Amino acid sequence: VSAEAEVLAANAAFYAAFGRGDRAAMHDLWAQRATVSCIHPGWPPVHGRDKVMSTWDGILDQPPRPAVRPVREVAHVIGATGIVVCYEAIGNVILAATNIFVREDGGWRMMHHQAGITERAPKDVVESGAPTGVVH
Amino acid sequence: VSAEAEVLAANAAFYAAFGRGDRAAMHDLWAQRATVSCIHPGWPPVHGRDKVMSTWDGILDQPPRPAVRPVREVAHVIGATGIVVCYEAIGNVILAATNIFVREDGGWRMMHHQAGITERAPKDVVESGAPTGVVH
Repeated sequence: VSAEAEVLAANAAFYAAFGRGDRAAMHDLWAQRATVSCIHPGWPPVHGRDKVMSTWDGILDQPPRPAVRPVREVAHVIGATGIVVCYEAIGNVILAATNIFVREDGGWRMMHHQAGITERAPKDVVESGAPTGVVH
Repeated sequence: VSAEAEVLAANAAFYAAFGRGDRAAMHDLWAQRATVSCIHPGWPPVHGRDKVMSTWDGILDQPPRPAVRPVREVAHVIGATGIVVCYEAIGNVILAATNIFVREDGGWRMMHHQAGITERAPKDVVESGAPTGVVH
């Protein structure tokens, strides 16, 4: 398995935990030792594991939970750093995201996430999103 | 000079080139060999040096050019990868950004940039922006 494939699997696990509203999995997949940060859409940057996990707890607790899917993921690995750029289809909203992973204890953990609304996503990306209001 | 300080200097050079509308400097500071990508605010992700530089040429050519300033930059270096998370004060608009740099030929070059509008920036960050419509 290539390092890029490993990083894409870590990226998929992030969106799966997001889609399930799985707080425990979300906590596990963020780095423990690297200094983490996160920029949610329209939010100021949040720095530090405690604050970042607190934002995710709040987001994952909010019903209804739309389907979440990464689309057109592109991964690059440089040493112990993995970078994924992708679309996010969240319900019928399309965002563009940067996800940065680091190797910790033999696995790839998330150290940074930024997502922002994209207004001009290609048609096939928009169609990959779920219908409005799907809860699963 | 620490690696973090070098990466912060590369980040400052990026915003200086942006603010000056300096196409040559902007081309020089992006990586030549690493596969680059860019997510402008509200845009789909753009992949590949030629396409990314073409977007910057378009942006830098647009008058009027507001003041551009990075604020509250936080840098982390992992091996040959440098990550900066910061606010961007562009005129009186505040954005949040992720900038990723890689070491190439002994210097730090940008390999990825994402910026998005931030609606809830702290007061001191908002006040660090220039008054509306400043051209320099």
